[in-house]
Amino acid sequence: MTQLAENVLSLFLAQIKQIKSYEEALGVLYWDLRTGAPRKGMEVRSETIGHLSGQMFKLSTAPELGEWLTQLEQPGVFADLNEINQRLVTETRKDYDRSVKIPPKLYQEYVVLTSQAESFWEEAKEKSDYASFEPYLDKIITYTNQFIDLWGVKGSRYDTLLDAYEPGMTTAELDRVFGGLREKLVPLSAAIAASPHQPATDFLKQTYAKEAQKKFSLFILGQMGFDFTGGRLDESVHPFATGLNPGDVRITTRYLTDDVTSALFGTIHEGGHALYEQNIKDELIGTTLCTGTSMGIHESQSRFWENVIGRSKSFWSRYYKDLQQHFPNQLEVPVEDFYRATNVVKPSLIRIEADELTYNLHIIIRYEMEKLIFNEGVKASELPALWNEKYKEYLGIVPENDGEGVLQDVHWSGGAFGYFPSYSLGNMYAAQITDTLERDLPDFWELVEKGELHPIKDWLTDKVYQYGKLRTPSELIQDITGKPLDPDYLVAYLEKKYKDIYKL
Amino acid sequence: MTQLAENVLSLFLAQIKQIKSYEEALGVLYWDLRTGAPRKGMEVRSETIGHLSGQMFKLSTAPELGEWLTQLEQPGVFADLNEINQRLVTETRKDYDRSVKIPPKLYQEYVVLTSQAESFWEEAKEKSDYASFEPYLDKIITYTNQFIDLWGVKGSRYDTLLDAYEPGMTTAELDRVFGGLREKLVPLSAAIAASPHQPATDFLKQTYAKEAQKKFSLFILGQMGFDFTGGRLDESVHPFATGLNPGDVRITTRYLTDDVTSALFGTIHEGGHALYEQNIKDELIGTTLCTGTSMGIHESQSRFWENVIGRSKSFWSRYYKDLQQHFPNQLEVPVEDFYRATNVVKPSLIRIEADELTYNLHIIIRYEMEKLIFNEGVKASELPALWNEKYKEYLGIVPENDGEGVLQDVHWSGGAFGYFPSYSLGNMYAAQITDTLERDLPDFWELVEKGELHPIKDWLTDKVYQYGKLRTPSELIQDITGKPLDPDYLVAYLEKKYKDIYKL
Repeated sequence: MTQLAENVLSLFLAQIKQIKSYEEALGVLYWDLRTGAPRKGMEVRSETIGHLSGQMFKLSTAPELGEWLTQLEQPGVFADLNEINQRLVTETRKDYDRSVKIPPKLYQEYVVLTSQAESFWEEAKEKSDYASFEPYLDKIITYTNQFIDLWGVKGSRYDTLLDAYEPGMTTAELDRVFGGLREKLVPLSAAIAASPHQPATDFLKQTYAKEAQKKFSLFILGQMGFDFTGGRLDESVHPFATGLNPGDVRITTRYLTDDVTSALFGTIHEGGHALYEQNIKDELIGTTLCTGTSMGIHESQSRFWENVIGRSKSFWSRYYKDLQQHFPNQLEVPVEDFYRATNVVKPSLIRIEADELTYNLHIIIRYEMEKLIFNEGVKASELPALWNEKYKEYLGIVPENDGEGVLQDVHWSGGAFGYFPSYSLGNMYAAQITDTLERDLPDFWELVEKGELHPIKDWLTDKVYQYGKLRTPSELIQDITGKPLDPDYLVAYLEKKYKDIYKL
Repeated sequence: MTQLAENVLSLFLAQIKQIKSYEEALGVLYWDLRTGAPRKGMEVRSETIGHLSGQMFKLSTAPELGEWLTQLEQPGVFADLNEINQRLVTETRKDYDRSVKIPPKLYQEYVVLTSQAESFWEEAKEKSDYASFEPYLDKIITYTNQFIDLWGVKGSRYDTLLDAYEPGMTTAELDRVFGGLREKLVPLSAAIAASPHQPATDFLKQTYAKEAQKKFSLFILGQMGFDFTGGRLDESVHPFATGLNPGDVRITTRYLTDDVTSALFGTIHEGGHALYEQNIKDELIGTTLCTGTSMGIHESQSRFWENVIGRSKSFWSRYYKDLQQHFPNQLEVPVEDFYRATNVVKPSLIRIEADELTYNLHIIIRYEMEKLIFNEGVKASELPALWNEKYKEYLGIVPENDGEGVLQDVHWSGGAFGYFPSYSLGNMYAAQITDTLERDLPDFWELVEKGELHPIKDWLTDKVYQYGKLRTPSELIQDITGKPLDPDYLVAYLEKKYKDIYKL
């Protein structure tokens, strides 16, 4: 490598590190906002966040960064970079091109619009008043279409949005996998609804002391291998996980005293995200590769721990007695009943309350609608009717009002079109990875039954966690399972599990 | 004002606001580090803090800031500025000149040295091994002397250091007030030690449940007028207060289960700091004037609430029954005994554990030593012997080792020479302000007895809090009390209180 190239590389890496510093500081500020920052200071805090975000954006779109990228991309130079720096150049180029294509003024308008829209959405949802939100949504769609034009279209227009959350994902690919999924899950969901063997769930609805719930949540996190010297568990209204750096990964949960499972599965879910972020390899620290590779892969890890492990018979055959001890005289039903109760499948209106099977139908509905908006030009005014039709068709139920229908999710008010598919991709990735895991660790389910979860965490670290953004989602899936994404794994997993539970 | 001046002013104000944004973000990061940030993430977090501090320093020393200041200082322009902007120019000029006089390389070396020194100090204190710390202290003194040369000397060399913590304070002034104090407090402390009427304190040392302590701390904060929508109470090893902005002021305390008074008085103390920061007027938000005017005035507010109010007979005549209710069957002694027990005066070796009377002697010792170091060239090697001599002379006791002697405080390891006097200045300011307060609110002590503390908070807001840094300490004291700082108020307050308690 020439001295010049060395110099350019070190300037480039220093800039990346600065960007990462702002990202970490902003991460702490957002975490703080959501875990108890005093309400009265919000206005000033927003300005501070705005200032830091602005500085970060300036560094991310600096003309010199573009020049350094061009120099590092020269074949003779690029070939001499190590694997990490090569990937860093490729990823930074993608983000850089995406960011510089949006004129700052347009972006600024969009930021103001979406931040206003979120509060109008909140009010509209509360009042089930779609008409008051529609003009905002309409504008957000218009801006997003402008962005698509500026970013450029390969394949379909919606692909351009998908790529931001799931690099390389396309409408064609999603049509294939979601098509396969929908075709099997709609009849399976109907068969389950018709089964006479519906689990009893009444015993879940007692008063469960918050302190005991917290203790048990911390216990399970420890069992999963969550590193408390490099992370913490707090409370927030909407649970989330944030990896500030691999030595500081924070998750939150929400304790409902009338439901013992809500905080528990929420904690396991966020714990799965946390294991990913805590186990990224040290060499990536201080670079923008030091995070999960995509929303979909991240979601695969949270859902693997929450559903595949956390809602399995093997898991509860080991941990039910611990749960019982945390709530003396409250959980006296046999473990089999508890297991079945935590796996009830029932078509419902609200995505975030859905079971692991019908959840995918909620996502497919949103995916199909977003595709219609951006590929077919469907208007904001047409969405409520469309929503209700699809719920009727896929889930057999219709919302009574838009608050429990088209207005239920925050995503669109923030312009996050293309995000929803990640959730179901996560389920599919998780099922496909589990299939390989079961073959690599033949005593997998015995380990779960014994509560020896560390070999599982280690296997995932080896295959997924350590790489951060060093592998793309499709590379990861191909490398781990030897195949591209295949929805049949999820279908097989769900069929096996629920045919047993519902005796189909 | 000319258009040009308007433009310069708005550039100047925007720069100040950016500096303030970094300050707020750093404030959250430091608060987070001290209230439970995971240990393992510290290294990366330090780099993030280093990056933001560097950016803030760059803005604070930017050549264009110097140019804007010069333009705004032109008499014709300055006269047209409003009061806030005038003070902002004056204060910024002071900080700017101080900062730009230190070559960045020298400052960088100093930052590295002091951050290393702090960890060596911690170890040295632990092992009572002064020899291992001496070379670091020696170097810090050398650097500090270089800084004094660069900053320039008016009056004595030590004055240059004092000015950073207590603007305008001089050695001559401190010699006057501390002289007056020492002369009265040494014999008073000796008379108290000789009194046969020593309060019993054994009942304070029981096991006091942490949850009840927390509840009572929150109750008392509420009584003081602490605004919980604009602040919060957390736990940390070393209690502190931080005003991120007037709508987000955070304090911490530390609960000792074998001592009911520690967290309580600690909370009241930090609560006093918090009331100051919460009640700065809105017009100062977003400027560097939006904070307490000096360490000494800040300390006067924490000590007013902790000692003048919190350790008064009137306060406990109102709140003792509430405290008793929080700890059923634990506090059965009469209120008079409780009051006397929380006001025990006893010469001791450790500053942070000292009572409100002898505390001042601990400070005078440190003041005299710092003065010797910078005005007389006393060497680091001479400090332990000097320390022990002074403790013998002023407090009649001698440390058994340097860990409980010259090594006890963190300040010098961080280069904070000139800081210690603030603590006693705080006591003196508090006593002098109280004298005016008693005359302005003739029913002052009746209000305390009735638990009507809001008029007191309002009076302090009117006289002190609202102004932030808009008044200098000496202006404040002169405006409020009609006189410059006078140590006799503190002497009179202490004599009256302790002659009663010890029946002298």
